[in-house]
Amino acid sequence: MADNSKIAVLDTSLVDRLPASSKTLFDAKAAKSLSFESIASELGRSEVAVAALFYGQAQASPEDVKKLSTILGVPESKLAEQLLGFPDRGRAGPMPPVEPLIYRLYEIVQNYGYAYKAVLNEKFGDGIMSAISFSTKVEKETDEQGNNWAVITLRGKWLPFTRF
Amino acid sequence: MADNSKIAVLDTSLVDRLPASSKTLFDAKAAKSLSFESIASELGRSEVAVAALFYGQAQASPEDVKKLSTILGVPESKLAEQLLGFPDRGRAGPMPPVEPLIYRLYEIVQNYGYAYKAVLNEKFGDGIMSAISFSTKVEKETDEQGNNWAVITLRGKWLPFTRF
Amino acid sequence: MADNSKIAVLDTSLVDRLPASSKTLFDAKAAKSLSFESIASELGRSEVAVAALFYGQAQASPEDVKKLSTILGVPESKLAEQLLGFPDRGRAGPMPPVEPLIYRLYEIVQNYGYAYKAVLNEKFGDGIMSAISFSTKVEKETDEQGNNWAVITLRGKWLPFTRF
Amino acid sequence: MADNSKIAVLDTSLVDRLPASSKTLFDAKAAKSLSFESIASELGRSEVAVAALFYGQAQASPEDVKKLSTILGVPESKLAEQLLGFPDRGRAGPMPPVEPLIYRLYEIVQNYGYAYKAVLNEKFGDGIMSAISFSTKVEKETDEQGNNWAVITLRGKWLPFTRF
Amino acid sequence: MADNSKIAVLDTSLVDRLPASSKTLFDAKAAKSLSFESIASELGRSEVAVAALFYGQAQASPEDVKKLSTILGVPESKLAEQLLGFPDRGRAGPMPPVEPLIYRLYEIVQNYGYAYKAVLNEKFGDGIMSAISFSTKVEKETDEQGNNWAVITLRGKWLPFTRF
Amino acid sequence: MADNSKIAVLDTSLVDRLPASSKTLFDAKAAKSLSFESIASELGRSEVAVAALFYGQAQASPEDVKKLSTILGVPESKLAEQLLGFPDRGRAGPMPPVEPLIYRLYEIVQNYGYAYKAVLNEKFGDGIMSAISFSTKVEKETDEQGNNWAVITLRGKWLPFTRF
Amino acid sequence: MADNSKIAVLDTSLVDRLPASSKTLFDAKAAKSLSFESIASELGRSEVAVAALFYGQAQASPEDVKKLSTILGVPESKLAEQLLGFPDRGRAGPMPPVEPLIYRLYEIVQNYGYAYKAVLNEKFGDGIMSAISFSTKVEKETDEQGNNWAVITLRGKWLPFTRF
Amino acid sequence: MADNSKIAVLDTSLVDRLPASSKTLFDAKAAKSLSFESIASELGRSEVAVAALFYGQAQASPEDVKKLSTILGVPESKLAEQLLGFPDRGRAGPMPPVEPLIYRLYEIVQNYGYAYKAVLNEKFGDGIMSAISFSTKVEKETDEQGNNWAVITLRGKWLPFTRF
Amino acid sequence: MADNSKIAVLDTSLVDRLPASSKTLFDAKAAKSLSFESIASELGRSEVAVAALFYGQAQASPEDVKKLSTILGVPESKLAEQLLGFPDRGRAGPMPPVEPLIYRLYEIVQNYGYAYKAVLNEKFGDGIMSAISFSTKVEKETDEQGNNWAVITLRGKWLPFTRF
Amino acid sequence: MADNSKIAVLDTSLVDRLPASSKTLFDAKAAKSLSFESIASELGRSEVAVAALFYGQAQASPEDVKKLSTILGVPESKLAEQLLGFPDRGRAGPMPPVEPLIYRLYEIVQNYGYAYKAVLNEKFGDGIMSAISFSTKVEKETDEQGNNWAVITLRGKWLPFTRF
Repeated sequence: MADNSKIAVLDTSLVDRLPASSKTLFDAKAAKSLSFESIASELGRSEVAVAALFYGQAQASPEDVKKLSTILGVPESKLAEQLLGFPDRGRAGPMPPVEPLIYRLYEIVQNYGYAYKAVLNEKFGDGIMSAISFSTKVEKETDEQGNNWAVITLRGKWLPFTRF
Repeated sequence: MADNSKIAVLDTSLVDRLPASSKTLFDAKAAKSLSFESIASELGRSEVAVAALFYGQAQASPEDVKKLSTILGVPESKLAEQLLGFPDRGRAGPMPPVEPLIYRLYEIVQNYGYAYKAVLNEKFGDGIMSAISFSTKVEKETDEQGNNWAVITLRGKWLPFTRF
Repeated sequence: MADNSKIAVLDTSLVDRLPASSKTLFDAKAAKSLSFESIASELGRSEVAVAALFYGQAQASPEDVKKLSTILGVPESKLAEQLLGFPDRGRAGPMPPVEPLIYRLYEIVQNYGYAYKAVLNEKFGDGIMSAISFSTKVEKETDEQGNNWAVITLRGKWLPFTRF
Repeated sequence: MADNSKIAVLDTSLVDRLPASSKTLFDAKAAKSLSFESIASELGRSEVAVAALFYGQAQASPEDVKKLSTILGVPESKLAEQLLGFPDRGRAGPMPPVEPLIYRLYEIVQNYGYAYKAVLNEKFGDGIMSAISFSTKVEKETDEQGNNWAVITLRGKWLPFTRF
Repeated sequence: MADNSKIAVLDTSLVDRLPASSKTLFDAKAAKSLSFESIASELGRSEVAVAALFYGQAQASPEDVKKLSTILGVPESKLAEQLLGFPDRGRAGPMPPVEPLIYRLYEIVQNYGYAYKAVLNEKFGDGIMSAISFSTKVEKETDEQGNNWAVITLRGKWLPFTRF
Repeated sequence: MADNSKIAVLDTSLVDRLPASSKTLFDAKAAKSLSFESIASELGRSEVAVAALFYGQAQASPEDVKKLSTILGVPESKLAEQLLGFPDRGRAGPMPPVEPLIYRLYEIVQNYGYAYKAVLNEKFGDGIMSAISFSTKVEKETDEQGNNWAVITLRGKWLPFTRF
Repeated sequence: MADNSKIAVLDTSLVDRLPASSKTLFDAKAAKSLSFESIASELGRSEVAVAALFYGQAQASPEDVKKLSTILGVPESKLAEQLLGFPDRGRAGPMPPVEPLIYRLYEIVQNYGYAYKAVLNEKFGDGIMSAISFSTKVEKETDEQGNNWAVITLRGKWLPFTRF
Repeated sequence: MADNSKIAVLDTSLVDRLPASSKTLFDAKAAKSLSFESIASELGRSEVAVAALFYGQAQASPEDVKKLSTILGVPESKLAEQLLGFPDRGRAGPMPPVEPLIYRLYEIVQNYGYAYKAVLNEKFGDGIMSAISFSTKVEKETDEQGNNWAVITLRGKWLPFTRF
Repeated sequence: MADNSKIAVLDTSLVDRLPASSKTLFDAKAAKSLSFESIASELGRSEVAVAALFYGQAQASPEDVKKLSTILGVPESKLAEQLLGFPDRGRAGPMPPVEPLIYRLYEIVQNYGYAYKAVLNEKFGDGIMSAISFSTKVEKETDEQGNNWAVITLRGKWLPFTRF
Repeated sequence: MADNSKIAVLDTSLVDRLPASSKTLFDAKAAKSLSFESIASELGRSEVAVAALFYGQAQASPEDVKKLSTILGVPESKLAEQLLGFPDRGRAGPMPPVEPLIYRLYEIVQNYGYAYKAVLNEKFGDGIMSAISFSTKVEKETDEQGNNWAVITLRGKWLPFTRF
């Protein structure tokens, strides 16, 4: 299983861009060699949401804090204090992204942005797909030739522009 | 059906950023009041792919050109000439996007980019989800309260970094 | 009443950034010397919404098109064609704004952005004020010393981040 | 009351962008679990002004310093020293904003900027709405369906361009 | 008097950035070989204000339009139409400026900006010097060695930040 | 005299952008509660020049160092060492400025830049107003209604472009 | 051979960024359905050099002009006039590139730039690989599984920094 | 062999942009005066890959970690911990590059980007050369006049755009 | 003399950035196959100054206009009109430059800027080398091995910062 | 000799952008009050090269290290270690430069870039002046009126574009 057995850790040069909780959470995750999949299943949340929480991009409920304290072996009070506030989102990495994996997601928006808009407008009218009333997940598929495929699903509430 | 019955047309101020084919295709689409859904079903391609083709972001096969000529009522030779080349992608709109609908897709990358990376790396190892060996689709769901939800699926081949 | 009797027209150097409808609408408004206030009252929409519609930032309903045709003396078919699509928002002017009036609105976001966030989060929890399920209006007040005050109201639906 | 009972704290990665007073004030606020609403009511200022003061975007009067010392339990001399100067505004966060809540305010300026200008010019003549002789507030409304709405009011003195 | 006898004309490559009135006004000025000094004295306004008006950065009163028509020999109706609206300021040239003369003014702000702020704050308290309730003039001085000195005066109303 | 009695201090978040001398000078000024006006009068230089010197934007002569040592109560050797070099100007704040007071100076250049150029060219020929052979001052005026006005004077040597 | 039989043509939205010769050359190439490979072999130059010449990024010798006139069926005088000058390089597309194919080349520089520098410095000393005394070529390889591989070779003279 | 005998070390001002492993690896390399060539030959990888690994741009296998520990004399556990995660690529240096050697590679993309695209499209159809299924190497050639030439080879899998 | 016998012409894609005079002058120069060297010697100005004049970066005296009319065979009145104004400098090309030749000049400033400053400050004190009271020339040298060297001389008046 | 007797030192706020050697070298230079002129004459290199070496923009030979150790009184081993690598050029200051002295050099490139290109192309053909096979020097001239002039000479090898 070689490479795949690795777990994601926090790049040290990212630490200054992220809230203090990110270092705490990632350090504990590394120390216990936990994958996001296992944390997510214990927490009852999606893997992407958990990873987002680790990067300071999603909020932890008091319940999450309690469970994370157990899962990660970090004192609840420390977690509670560092996760006390409201997430200050959007500063994890530079935009346009320089990381190749993230850049390709950006490129999809760059290349297909207007196509999505045209299709969504025709299907729903004038409005947007919310990125707040929103959930997302990542799945792995393997085709018959043994190739792996990543499938990312974005699901957002449709918000029509208010007429005023 | 009011607003929803509208079809997407080409904003006149975008014309200069796009290849000549975009104006030809959108003008014919508007003249015939065709939705991307109906064109896509006649062409046997996905709606997003067709819209992307209209915006110069996807390639038309000779077969597509023939069918589009019939569907849109544009001389095949004219279409063939304007669609002759290889798409020069990525210049349809500014980045970061200023259009609210497209911005929200960008924001998803901004907020969840590192979370996607962490989860994908743990699931697949070191690599990227291809945006080239890639397909995407848009679906509409309506929940029990009558709310509409847009669901966008991104499916890309996993490419591991070559060891060298 | 000197200066105040003037009406807003379209700066010629903005024309290329805007959809074709903007020129049509502004030209007719200028020819008839109509204020946004009078158009809005005939249309039954807010002044800001009407101005936004003129700048290609809001959608016209079929009803609006019919009424605008009468109010402005522009053939309905011409208006219908130019207003057929879905607005492609966000490109009216540069950001950061260089126009002093618009810059001051931008500066309010720059200076008070985090203060708004902190107060809104404490009042509503983790989420955003929608700019889509949203309306806005402008009012004029005159205080006892005869000074004029502009009052801009922003009203948006609160959208909590989905837990997933 | 779950999430809503949380109070806003200072994201650790913002500390370096803000004056020393921000950390002092937010730390004390967190230690005492005070909301901006309660501080504002004791201080006799608006909630947004107080939050702005915490982010170094508004000035504290000597009176404010004295009261804050009592409310927050911070020695008056320490507060006085850190709040001694004139605010150096505008550096709390990046522009364009990457935080989703703040971005939506920015987007309102982007989309409606020219509409506001046109309407304000017709109502007041050639000039600007001051962002200095200015106050703002945030209110919460709940409609009959139980939806929450945020209402932000901006009130600025109208300044006509001097003729010279 | 060689070079000094020249008058300022409109660089053709700037035309597209400016309102239609700029070309009309500058063409007439060039045809009549008028300096801003002579136009300003006939109009009863300052030279800088007149030049700003020519560049679309200041408003013309109906009176100005009438007089300019006479001074420049342009039909009043044409001027009235082109000068009908409210100026859309700030787009005459790029920022940072690339023109050496304008760059040096920008450099003064870059180098002395904080010094001005510190001195103004100490003299007036927390606030700004208005650029709207504002006038400016340019003067020429010649010292005893025969060197010429340009003197630019900026005079703006002091606006204290409102306490709220 | 309330707010006006405050003196300007160094925002802690600016420290890293400035030379070591800035912190030394501002700390001493704060400790002694000295205004730039009083330091300037003892030093025999203009207030703006002194503030610029504090921000690392102007050079101190050996004489200045000696006097500053006395005025501020800082050992001369320490001042001499920190003020030994040639100023490395232009890095005190970001451009475009985000501070409202400094932004308005920038806006004056943005709006009136070409007007200044046109008027200066007509008065002096082809050249620039030097920002090096240059002095500037700030004055306070109060009009009959009790309004305060800030007057900034910029005086620079006229440099004609060399013909070669 | 379907798609592969297509030839590269000039995207109409690029025309304004390129010299007049680009349109002339690409139009003639399209009219004759010539590939760069065939033109290159007749011209005795590399394919990339010929494509670069078509995009205005390489110089044509008088000999090239003569041969191109024959190959493309364009009057020699017209070609000579349009290819008369020295190429004004670097403006064919935006940087960072938005075209996916070109972006990946850019990404290679972004990711491996310092690695190339370290290896080249160790092999050659302090200097650079010239991009002027430089040639490049593109080759196609097919591996045993039938996968195609693109091989790009960059060959530049090593220039050591002069000691002075 | 003078200059050429030098080995590449890590510029201290780059440390903060790179993961902790970079400093560890480069320090050990410097202490042992090892070239990338010798490390690469012991590791059985290409020189560029090894340098990329040192700059945090490529992944180390468990095998690599073991060997590097021996080669560099760094405890395996320390290396393992710092090289545990998935590389977070793309942040080693600024783009556009300011380093002259790296800039020239960037310039090659800028000048020849469209030429490469045109030639690759004609040879392979619509697609990209992968930068992930990719390897690269650097070679040194000396011509008959004794001039040195650097030869960089880029070899990437061709990925056709999926039709969907 | 092959390539060297070519003369510089105006790239058609630059025309819109430059004043109308540039096209007039370059067209006439091309029609007459004149080098800048020959025009300069007839005009009694330096080659660089003449080229700058052609690009709208330097002013023509009435004398120059007269001579240019003769040299180029363009009616004096046409030249006079197009060269009537004061140059609006700095917009000929983008910065950072993308043209390789111009980029290298930029790179010299990037790499040696602080070194020049340090040396100039030590030689002259606190001040700048004027780019206005300034002349420049280009010379060609050939060394004993037959290599050509370009020598660019910049000569500017030293301006000390005014003490105030 | 007042100001001129000063020597250039390292601005503390630049330290983080530069290699560790810069602080070592400048500190020693300041401690010994050495000018670049005196160091250069002892080292047998040009003043600009020495200053560039201090700013990490040029390489030191082993011989230079030895001599610098003596001149500056820094242990040779320390210098050797810090100067061991290959310079990582181009990051000393921001571009566009904000320092007035450096900006004027930048402005010369901005204003005269195309003029230099045109003249160089006519003199040498299609190519560039190398910034690598390059030397530069600074001289001081005093004219008859006692004005000082700075003369900067740039001398680079001409590199013709390779035909391929």
